[in-house]
Amino acid sequence: MKTSALSALGRRTGPPPISWLMQTALSRPGLISLAAGFTDNATLPVDLSRKLLNRVLRSPKFGQPALQYGITAGETNLRRLTARHLQKLDLGGTPFRRPKSQGRRHAVPPEIHSWEHVLITGGSQQLLYMTLEALCDEGDIVLVEDPTYFVFLSILQSRGIRARGVRLERDGLDLAHLETVLQRLKKSGELRRLKALYLISYFQNPTGATTSFGKKRGILKLLKKFERAAGHPIYLLEDAAYRELSFAGRADLPVSQVARQHVPTIPPSALMVSGAADRVIYTGTYSKPYAPGARVGFGLLPEPLFTSVQRIKGNHDFGTANLLQQLIAGALQTGLYDRHVAKIEKRYGQKARVMKLALAECFPPNVEIWESGGGLYFWVRLPKHIATGVTSKIFQTALKNDVLYVPGELCYAADPARKKPDHEMRLSFGSASEEDIREGIQRLGKVLKKILGTKSVG
Amino acid sequence: MKTSALSALGRRTGPPPISWLMQTALSRPGLISLAAGFTDNATLPVDLSRKLLNRVLRSPKFGQPALQYGITAGETNLRRLTARHLQKLDLGGTPFRRPKSQGRRHAVPPEIHSWEHVLITGGSQQLLYMTLEALCDEGDIVLVEDPTYFVFLSILQSRGIRARGVRLERDGLDLAHLETVLQRLKKSGELRRLKALYLISYFQNPTGATTSFGKKRGILKLLKKFERAAGHPIYLLEDAAYRELSFAGRADLPVSQVARQHVPTIPPSALMVSGAADRVIYTGTYSKPYAPGARVGFGLLPEPLFTSVQRIKGNHDFGTANLLQQLIAGALQTGLYDRHVAKIEKRYGQKARVMKLALAECFPPNVEIWESGGGLYFWVRLPKHIATGVTSKIFQTALKNDVLYVPGELCYAADPARKKPDHEMRLSFGSASEEDIREGIQRLGKVLKKILGTKSVG
Repeated sequence: MKTSALSALGRRTGPPPISWLMQTALSRPGLISLAAGFTDNATLPVDLSRKLLNRVLRSPKFGQPALQYGITAGETNLRRLTARHLQKLDLGGTPFRRPKSQGRRHAVPPEIHSWEHVLITGGSQQLLYMTLEALCDEGDIVLVEDPTYFVFLSILQSRGIRARGVRLERDGLDLAHLETVLQRLKKSGELRRLKALYLISYFQNPTGATTSFGKKRGILKLLKKFERAAGHPIYLLEDAAYRELSFAGRADLPVSQVARQHVPTIPPSALMVSGAADRVIYTGTYSKPYAPGARVGFGLLPEPLFTSVQRIKGNHDFGTANLLQQLIAGALQTGLYDRHVAKIEKRYGQKARVMKLALAECFPPNVEIWESGGGLYFWVRLPKHIATGVTSKIFQTALKNDVLYVPGELCYAADPARKKPDHEMRLSFGSASEEDIREGIQRLGKVLKKILGTKSVG
Repeated sequence: MKTSALSALGRRTGPPPISWLMQTALSRPGLISLAAGFTDNATLPVDLSRKLLNRVLRSPKFGQPALQYGITAGETNLRRLTARHLQKLDLGGTPFRRPKSQGRRHAVPPEIHSWEHVLITGGSQQLLYMTLEALCDEGDIVLVEDPTYFVFLSILQSRGIRARGVRLERDGLDLAHLETVLQRLKKSGELRRLKALYLISYFQNPTGATTSFGKKRGILKLLKKFERAAGHPIYLLEDAAYRELSFAGRADLPVSQVARQHVPTIPPSALMVSGAADRVIYTGTYSKPYAPGARVGFGLLPEPLFTSVQRIKGNHDFGTANLLQQLIAGALQTGLYDRHVAKIEKRYGQKARVMKLALAECFPPNVEIWESGGGLYFWVRLPKHIATGVTSKIFQTALKNDVLYVPGELCYAADPARKKPDHEMRLSFGSASEEDIREGIQRLGKVLKKILGTKSVG
């Protein structure tokens, strides 16, 4: 008799790739972790949330509904606010609007994103999971950036979905390589299994790269071109989790100035590519910009995906906790959400600058550093023959010196077309204090200088 | 070209069986819904939650962690409190303990449920979903009570898992029929596909039936007996969602008395069956007894299921929102949770009594009514030839008279071994006001009397 009755999915679902790293961090109090993708503790909106929750729970109108079951797709109010929020991001304009006296009306721009296609979820991770459930059978293929978000790779792996990597450049996907990959799939007859391309479009995890609007258009055009051969739609799954964590050039500005400043460098979402709305699945989150502990994410999905994912959500949990939805709705409605985002942008800008200075000071010159205008990460590329994986000399020496990073190889799909690059590292400035960032980079720099110094650099 | 790229799961996932009923209820303001399984609005712990959240978010120790990412399996504190809570329920004894002065220590009973096997989820629904993911492949079989919880049937259907019904008696499953079903599966060679039996053990949805401890023991014994032929473990998935909504004989007692009263009639969970802990998956929830809008559920799972489901949870959402976990932990820790449960028990007891009296007064004598000592439902069985489904004369006439119930047939699995019974109805007193319960039952009684009166009753 077998000792286990697990399903194929149950057997395939491995431990999360960095759980070991996390465990290690917890068990060594002196260790500085530049590995975790956690957000900054000091700027979490603790007081703000308390005030908003008091307002909700004191309200005769919202108090009881906040604690009752709701609608699977999410509270109508939050769905509307989310559509409007997205519209504001996509049209540019003032990043936030202060609560005004009731007497004054604002000119409402025409609705470009339909709130009826907005689905509220328990973080955007849940939306990614359910979208893959709705879209992919075992053996299907999803294209991913090379490198990409490792938990997404875990989901694919657990569900028996194959990932194929498309080269990433500093302004987003390499379109020529995307075409090559599509051609190759067409030739091998596997295009029928291709369902989507997964793109972390803003301040990407792990590289910090942002995909330009031109490239988004290019990607959609290429996917469309191959649809006939595929025999079905091929979707662009745009993950915008880091979109609102932008700080380019903001670190030195006072909050009020940051808030009012127009940021033209952040491209609109792929939803804005003309004629492409029925092929774009957009996922976003309030977790990273507001609070991961009040986990609310959202998606904007075309039909038939919206209906399908909504039904799947009904089977998962009938809808995200109303209390959290009311909290986020309150933050958005009062304008306090945008104020908070302005505050954390400043904070991350500051921490990124600290890491950048430390990297410039402490890292050897023969490493390539990808700096980002937002997000939580720096991406560091060592010379190609220098391994960074958990068994490597660098990782082990770093650990001995009490500093932790995410090895780059964890972020690459198992793609038979290439060997996994193993000479990179993701460094996060999200949760570490400024002091720890400085100290951590210093420790890591010493390790690198020592090891890179003893090898001939190619 | 196909217009859809949906997966088999995406295509199979149908609309939730009662979404149409819900829609109908929303669009007709005069309609009284005895269909929804919502909880009572008036007793939702709005003030209590506000106070607890203030405490959490004012605390230098808990404020920030409440808004940060946490551990996938759940906060250690809540997992410990949950194990202790379960222990209290399983050992009987005082249902709640008032917060005492710090100086006094309580004798701590030996730990019978290991907190390390407790997984915190976004409601127990999520745990049911993930457990099926970990356990069942397409084509596998799960035994269910006949009738059972219709959303569970939806999950099975969407995942291509086959459901087989086992007859339900008023004190739980019919053990003889269970053995017959197991024998039949053995004979047909399908026992290898049988992974679990799903049991809503307390105040069942939809019938209100509670499975006796003796029957739990009998079920586990039978499952064990057939394991050799199955070639793998067969689990008992015990869903205890309604366990704490018990009110037998409590309606007339003042709250304080209710709280202290020992309730010997509620059997322990299947976890307490000697030697069976490695075959029982127990799921519970704080949603129904506390607040569905602060959706927190939990499971206690044996290995290898605990690890597998924990990993799947990592892929779904990395863990349930910490803010909600802290809220529930605070409620449990202060004893205010148990006080609240005592309050709602009284309330549901009162509403159940109202419905019972109305049923006795308004329903024709030739219907069978299953009364429960807890939960949210009455189960009504009409003479066998009287249909209650959505296209039936009774349902349509009831609708015309602005009253809604859940047709019993929605609660039966598609089991080829029998025709779906279609002469029953689930009546909920959970969310309707006492006035609406009286009025709703009166309207429905009139419809039944009219229609049953015109047919010769078999």
